[in-house]
Amino acid sequence: MAIAPSRDTTLCISLAGRPGTFGVRFHNHLYQQLGLDYYYKAMTTQDLPAAVGGIRALGIRGCGVSMPYKEACMALVDEIDPSAAAIESVNTLVNTNGHLKAYNTDYLAVRQLLESHQVDPATAFALRGSGGMAKAVASALRDAGFREGLIIARNEQAGRQLADTCGYRWQRELGDLCPPMLVNVTPIGMAGGPQAQALAFPHEAVEAAQLVFDVVAMPAMTPLIVLAQELGKPVITGLDVIALQALEQFVLYTGIRPTVEQVEAAVAYAREA
Amino acid sequence: MAIAPSRDTTLCISLAGRPGTFGVRFHNHLYQQLGLDYYYKAMTTQDLPAAVGGIRALGIRGCGVSMPYKEACMALVDEIDPSAAAIESVNTLVNTNGHLKAYNTDYLAVRQLLESHQVDPATAFALRGSGGMAKAVASALRDAGFREGLIIARNEQAGRQLADTCGYRWQRELGDLCPPMLVNVTPIGMAGGPQAQALAFPHEAVEAAQLVFDVVAMPAMTPLIVLAQELGKPVITGLDVIALQALEQFVLYTGIRPTVEQVEAAVAYAREA
Repeated sequence: MAIAPSRDTTLCISLAGRPGTFGVRFHNHLYQQLGLDYYYKAMTTQDLPAAVGGIRALGIRGCGVSMPYKEACMALVDEIDPSAAAIESVNTLVNTNGHLKAYNTDYLAVRQLLESHQVDPATAFALRGSGGMAKAVASALRDAGFREGLIIARNEQAGRQLADTCGYRWQRELGDLCPPMLVNVTPIGMAGGPQAQALAFPHEAVEAAQLVFDVVAMPAMTPLIVLAQELGKPVITGLDVIALQALEQFVLYTGIRPTVEQVEAAVAYAREA
Repeated sequence: MAIAPSRDTTLCISLAGRPGTFGVRFHNHLYQQLGLDYYYKAMTTQDLPAAVGGIRALGIRGCGVSMPYKEACMALVDEIDPSAAAIESVNTLVNTNGHLKAYNTDYLAVRQLLESHQVDPATAFALRGSGGMAKAVASALRDAGFREGLIIARNEQAGRQLADTCGYRWQRELGDLCPPMLVNVTPIGMAGGPQAQALAFPHEAVEAAQLVFDVVAMPAMTPLIVLAQELGKPVITGLDVIALQALEQFVLYTGIRPTVEQVEAAVAYAREA
């Protein structure tokens, strides 16, 4: 069910150094399923200020923001939602009559997943990683009330900084520790990467864990998630994160919240390509 | 045959104070018929410099320009084609890797129509009108070698200025003159206007004419064209102009020239709405 383009079609876009297919397929599929006169287009730019100015001036309703623009676009918007302010990183712009508001739906998705899985904030955790997404996840944990956290990162400077920002500790390696929640926010286990077959945490730690959370989405079935499921552990996968963050973008752009079934179908369609 | 949106879809837009439906339907229909991964979106703006900067920065391939932006956008582009320079008015922007070139395909369409109808440049004409489109048509006549022209305009200042620019004479009214070619570039005969039922030239002048050219496209069958056809005169209609100017935009954006049949089908589809 394709919607014929009209004079009044609402345009949403994404900006990424290397535009992907997920957003285009996810959003356009839902637009079509829900009969919305919207269109989603992936873009890139060499001139972020002019691109953001163009979003405002051309009445483009929404924009997904990916690397390498997530920090730089903060200075170009009119308002910053707490979700983006918390981590000084933006992945979503919403344009309401020329007023640009910046959000971070990765942060919002992690907050929601911790809540929907009813994870007790008293749960101690180890989070591996120190990049932009690690900051989103660690900040979400902090803001959800998790007090006892350990940031595991080989990069001491970035690891210490993230730990300090959130009030957690830093260690280079997990060692023999076995915290009840394990969170991977590195590319370990990502298809095509140098560590596609590697476990982000030691086998013993996974055995001892009560919950395993991996943000890698390609594939969602990383070695870490596969092992955790074999061991009967509850898991949160990268697929849960990208589906939920894309859904929150969709809701911000359209004001409409699709059903779980519609979202699952759109995610499945988006991942076919 | 709808094309599924992809990561690589090429976006073209239009900018108009009051966006219409013709361009959206014409271009998207041809994209679909020809299987091109393009999408066309009508837009407006309150901030033309930022909008044009956004076209450049976002990699939007082409932009149709309508009132009130046709003159103002000349200062914002990188290169001006002779078609736009001739009349200091732009109706088309083409973005090639961030280099914006401005064209006027109304001018190009009139030039082509004079040629395809094999109108002898020695033919004397009266052109009624003195607005932006009148300038495009008069300049096309001048540049096609037409030397003997009379600009008919109630607005003396605008009429004299247009006549002087092109080397023609000006008169307030046609009077009893009966030039072999009559050209209407006023809203007389336009549906919904105050003179929808009026003839742009006296009955006697139409009787005496060898060719009648009316740029009014809504409807193409103006009282002037209807009368000329009843009298067995060759005509050029506003529909010919808008179809050809839209086609030239299409060719500039895509590099592909559709067949006459494809263009006619797209025009018919575009005018259904």
